[in-house]
Amino acid sequence: MKTIVLSLDDTVKLIREIGHDALMDEMIDRLGRAFATYNARDTVMPPRDGFHYKQPATGLVEWMPVMENGQVSIKVVGYHPENPTRHNLPTILGTISAYDTHTGHLIGIVDGTFLTAIRTAAASAVASRYLAAPHSKTLGIIGAGAQAIAQVHAISREFKIDTVLFFDIDAAAAATFPDRCAVLGLENVAIKAAPIAEIVSESDIICTATSIEVGAPPLFADLPARPWLHVNAAGSDFEGKTELDRDFLRGALVCPDLKEQAILQGECQQLAEDEIGPELVEVIQHPTRWDDARGKRTVFDSTGLALEDHVAINMVLDFARELDLGQMIQIENLSADPKNPYSFLYVPTGADG
Amino acid sequence: MKTIVLSLDDTVKLIREIGHDALMDEMIDRLGRAFATYNARDTVMPPRDGFHYKQPATGLVEWMPVMENGQVSIKVVGYHPENPTRHNLPTILGTISAYDTHTGHLIGIVDGTFLTAIRTAAASAVASRYLAAPHSKTLGIIGAGAQAIAQVHAISREFKIDTVLFFDIDAAAAATFPDRCAVLGLENVAIKAAPIAEIVSESDIICTATSIEVGAPPLFADLPARPWLHVNAAGSDFEGKTELDRDFLRGALVCPDLKEQAILQGECQQLAEDEIGPELVEVIQHPTRWDDARGKRTVFDSTGLALEDHVAINMVLDFARELDLGQMIQIENLSADPKNPYSFLYVPTGADG
Repeated sequence: MKTIVLSLDDTVKLIREIGHDALMDEMIDRLGRAFATYNARDTVMPPRDGFHYKQPATGLVEWMPVMENGQVSIKVVGYHPENPTRHNLPTILGTISAYDTHTGHLIGIVDGTFLTAIRTAAASAVASRYLAAPHSKTLGIIGAGAQAIAQVHAISREFKIDTVLFFDIDAAAAATFPDRCAVLGLENVAIKAAPIAEIVSESDIICTATSIEVGAPPLFADLPARPWLHVNAAGSDFEGKTELDRDFLRGALVCPDLKEQAILQGECQQLAEDEIGPELVEVIQHPTRWDDARGKRTVFDSTGLALEDHVAINMVLDFARELDLGQMIQIENLSADPKNPYSFLYVPTGADG
Repeated sequence: MKTIVLSLDDTVKLIREIGHDALMDEMIDRLGRAFATYNARDTVMPPRDGFHYKQPATGLVEWMPVMENGQVSIKVVGYHPENPTRHNLPTILGTISAYDTHTGHLIGIVDGTFLTAIRTAAASAVASRYLAAPHSKTLGIIGAGAQAIAQVHAISREFKIDTVLFFDIDAAAAATFPDRCAVLGLENVAIKAAPIAEIVSESDIICTATSIEVGAPPLFADLPARPWLHVNAAGSDFEGKTELDRDFLRGALVCPDLKEQAILQGECQQLAEDEIGPELVEVIQHPTRWDDARGKRTVFDSTGLALEDHVAINMVLDFARELDLGQMIQIENLSADPKNPYSFLYVPTGADG
């Protein structure tokens, strides 16, 4: 009874084999179906918890558990905004593990950094499908880091985007954004730096994904915008960290991914209970209930769900099995005699099961 | 920046190289020092949490996190009492992972099944050092499963045990216990089945480690016992599951490993706040305060600590590095460009750091 360990090389082979567009399409598709069938009885998803600290670096390590359909998935994820500058590492580092609830066995462990990027972006794509104007053409990006690339990717799979307007407070990050997007192979999409005011006024869909500091003023406030502007707010994901203006939120239908978590860690921190709209799954499952929001401003308050990681690891494990990728490693001590923790010392090991 | 993955074969090599006695001695030694220096400011240890369920099997998957000294350690552990009979697997299956709080990087992942057994047993040895009669010779074992072997091992490293009296409600488990203990190579120790009443009356130290069901009557009640009997109660570790009689506990100095957790999941569930004694670390750090407990009945309410797993994984990783065991696998997506989650698709991977 071994554990599938997917190395980065395996992940690279997997994505090259599948193709990053097909992978994103599959992620969006699976996530859309997961949201469409989600109910809190069959999917147990406690709010994530973790350690937050200022030393040795500002950061946090969190665990995001979910149980569904005989499987527990747990992402353990670090958020360290100084990683890129201090260590040339991504801000987000993580792994996702899956456990079988029949026995407790660790089924597999895979990268959670790339998967966090694509599952977060895929969630924005699904949210935009239900909340944004159907013929959205202009995508605004505020915060042009790693997550932004994935957002451009996901939204451009769901909509016929012809223009991406982007802004980053870090001029170096802004300067390299078009080149970094080149990897996506988007033809016929103009990718242009723009001031925030222009992004807000011109965009059909905006994705915010900044490392804004706790207590900083919002990214924008009181700017002219299209009436049916939809914002995917992906950057607000821990206590005190919010990106959007409170009045802007009050003028919008704000749909959190998980209300309980968004009130603690998302844009919903800024709102009273009755100012918060339905959870995204409710919109997806009962679309006609929210017909009067069509044409109006909407916000997807995306704090990140363990369910999204669960869907992501299962997608990757399915592809890995199909393509015969990953190493099978026996990590747990499976004694020949389950009632003797030492017996494995004296019998041949490595038995599969 | 890779992750050390210790396979079962690596673990076996490691233990054979070090020797299981030296390994247990090291575990007891490290744990004793960790308890002696523990303080709640430098070691952040939230109560464990998890999923408990009846389907597809009665069981639970829990996560036990701790942060100390620039490292987060998390054990994810399953408890499935039907594993031995239904799947020929240990009741406890788990892995322990360590994360660097500088960056969030997953440092390593190792078996948590064997380590849970030995760290739990080592905790009993440390507790017994401070709470049991110094010249204890007779060890009683109630519940002769996997944990019992480790308890016999650990206690016999700390005391000159000459007799082990054991009982298991499962006759098959009882019948094989002496043979299973043979792996420990204990010479001059008589290992004998005995009824519970004899175990209670004859033992200096008792270890209870049963899979008693929630709501079942206690393992024993109101039996003659030595005045300075010390009990390591290792089996009570989730809500509703207790092994000892309430009046027996009331007649003893009950020292939980972590009071907050023991009140929820240990023998302390049965006690009022003022009936609970000091935490073990308090006894260790202030031994003279509890001098009047010497010669009297004591109980170590061992619910299992993330700190114990933290000490265990660090011990094993230290040995693995020393012996050059384990595979270094790059699991996390470390993009060449930390601001582009896709860049690793197009550059050579596997860079170490």
